[in-house]
Amino acid sequence: MQSFNPPRRILMGPGPSDVSPRVLAALARPTIGHLDPAFQDLMEEIKAGLSRLMNAPGYACVPLPAPGTAGMEAAIMNLLQPGERAVIAVNGAFGGRMADMAGRAGAEVVTVDHEWGQPVDAQRVEAVLAERPAKLLAFVHAETSTGALSDAHPLCAAAARHGALSIVDCVTSLGGVPVNAVGWGADVIYSGTQKCLSAPPGLSPIALSSRAQAAIAARTEKPRNWLFDFQLLMSYWGGEGGRTYHHTAPINALYGLHEALVVLFEEGLQAAFVRHARTHGALAAGVEALGLSFLVDAPHRLPQLNAVRVPDGVDEAAVRTHVLNAWGLEIGAGLGPLKGKVWRIGLMGASASDWHVRLCLTALADALNAQGNGADGRRALDAAEASLSRET
Amino acid sequence: MQSFNPPRRILMGPGPSDVSPRVLAALARPTIGHLDPAFQDLMEEIKAGLSRLMNAPGYACVPLPAPGTAGMEAAIMNLLQPGERAVIAVNGAFGGRMADMAGRAGAEVVTVDHEWGQPVDAQRVEAVLAERPAKLLAFVHAETSTGALSDAHPLCAAAARHGALSIVDCVTSLGGVPVNAVGWGADVIYSGTQKCLSAPPGLSPIALSSRAQAAIAARTEKPRNWLFDFQLLMSYWGGEGGRTYHHTAPINALYGLHEALVVLFEEGLQAAFVRHARTHGALAAGVEALGLSFLVDAPHRLPQLNAVRVPDGVDEAAVRTHVLNAWGLEIGAGLGPLKGKVWRIGLMGASASDWHVRLCLTALADALNAQGNGADGRRALDAAEASLSRET
Repeated sequence: MQSFNPPRRILMGPGPSDVSPRVLAALARPTIGHLDPAFQDLMEEIKAGLSRLMNAPGYACVPLPAPGTAGMEAAIMNLLQPGERAVIAVNGAFGGRMADMAGRAGAEVVTVDHEWGQPVDAQRVEAVLAERPAKLLAFVHAETSTGALSDAHPLCAAAARHGALSIVDCVTSLGGVPVNAVGWGADVIYSGTQKCLSAPPGLSPIALSSRAQAAIAARTEKPRNWLFDFQLLMSYWGGEGGRTYHHTAPINALYGLHEALVVLFEEGLQAAFVRHARTHGALAAGVEALGLSFLVDAPHRLPQLNAVRVPDGVDEAAVRTHVLNAWGLEIGAGLGPLKGKVWRIGLMGASASDWHVRLCLTALADALNAQGNGADGRRALDAAEASLSRET
Repeated sequence: MQSFNPPRRILMGPGPSDVSPRVLAALARPTIGHLDPAFQDLMEEIKAGLSRLMNAPGYACVPLPAPGTAGMEAAIMNLLQPGERAVIAVNGAFGGRMADMAGRAGAEVVTVDHEWGQPVDAQRVEAVLAERPAKLLAFVHAETSTGALSDAHPLCAAAARHGALSIVDCVTSLGGVPVNAVGWGADVIYSGTQKCLSAPPGLSPIALSSRAQAAIAARTEKPRNWLFDFQLLMSYWGGEGGRTYHHTAPINALYGLHEALVVLFEEGLQAAFVRHARTHGALAAGVEALGLSFLVDAPHRLPQLNAVRVPDGVDEAAVRTHVLNAWGLEIGAGLGPLKGKVWRIGLMGASASDWHVRLCLTALADALNAQGNGADGRRALDAAEASLSRET
């Protein structure tokens, strides 16, 4: 067993994305204690940064000490008690996961199923909410499995109109497109660090409205999820009247998240959204010049997650292997019903740059050519450059 | 919001312990994808390393993607279904936490309560197991709240004699004193990374026997704990027939754990145990020369966690504040009934060195003197040096 030195990789899959040298350097700063006054100041800064990032003033914002799915589990398991009704919009793998979790919670689960690649339809969801009172509505803002962006505001508003709490999965959206807890009237928002925040995987920021907190306080049964028990978590992260030991916070991972927030605020949130949109435009122009098409219609496409259809006669896995081996480039495969049918190309955080677009188009063209597809890499690059210069 | 630069700290509390520069450097290596072939090789090495560390050949060994308590939650929630009987030995804060979790699982919980600071009494536990069949026995090998070491072998054997599975909390023991899954006949062992492994907090290694795995496979109800659902975890970490996506592994934290294992195996497990015992002997000699005493009787003392009684007339918190501010030294406070009554001094992993012993005794004597206690720091250092030279 010897020290591990990772190979050179360019991360353009569905996450993790490339982590900047600044964030990597932050990870390596000396570990201090989780009850250290200096660490408690850091916790407060992270809470404030998350609140700003999600536009969630007045919400309880904390980074859960586990990967993005922790946010989903915390939201579902803290809000639902056995027998309560949960409406879950499913338009991809992660909506399906929410439904699985709600079932484990002992809830009566009603799914509103959509074709994968479509955004969530607020009218259909509202019709289901109107049938009978539900405890909550849960949906995915940015479906990582398809690259579809759903309009969160009308969905949260529909939930509120029918007395349901709203849970919004923002794992892939946060930092890449606007996330707006207050503007949407969302009750719970959660995300991950390894997408558009470009920190390593391992933390899940979550925000809870006062309405969600009140619902949790009114539980009659403790959740079985001890680490993600929100009331215990808040006695640790809450900061009022001293902290009560709960778990040991993942210190160095939190250094990384903090630095990722500093980097993002230095650039400016709005500038980051523009950068994601601009690089997506260039990638899309290049991909289309290669003769490829998108799974999701243009109005609903996430800039940061591009599901590109595999053309007939092309071996999907062989293309991924080629770009990995020849170019050190990671792109993602399809999940579930999309397995073998799409590639998922991420332009997330530090991976949303002109350089990444050029590399990806070049590598893709090379891999397609290796299969005799006759893709024209020069034409794809020209199309991307034209798009970039239009948007500069 | 600006980049965070931690103050200089020497970590001699109940964890985290000092993280070595080699492990810090590993954390900062470039992030690669969690489905990358190179990362999958790393996963296999970590699994093999954990199996060796816990002497758990034939067990399923994985690092859970969350702090040490994750191991406890995974063990309790995967093994228990509502209505099943759980016998929990409680001799400190973490036994109490196990009982809380088992109650949340809907189990019939029987605690065998001990005075804090005492080891678990195998005869008393066996008497309770003999009363009526139980699904499991859970206990803490090394109580972090008191520094008491319990003898795991007779406890696991008693469980096996009465048809119960055994769960052993080795959060603070792993890497500091022998942990021996096969030798004990333990069914589940879990630990954390921030104690004697000297990696940052954030991961929880766990090992499950085939008997434990069979019990999980026989469940009639899915656990509510999705992230720690062992069957889902093993489809991701299992490695047979390809991996099924579950969560996104915390890549950089796993780089750190891997390097910590490399460092530990380079030193040799046996040598690490000797080092912990030797530095403990020196600290104990010095502490006693300062006129202080231990909570736990010598035969049951953990070398890596020293609960030292606060003498009459000394302000417990003021001593901790003094050593932190003047010496950058973190030592721990007492928990629960021991709050204000003990300090918890860790000699864990990279913090178990002669240098740490010298610094700690010097800082403690200084802090006691600042309160007019008249502690003789020179005498304490001499006692420690004498102990170190006897043991070299």
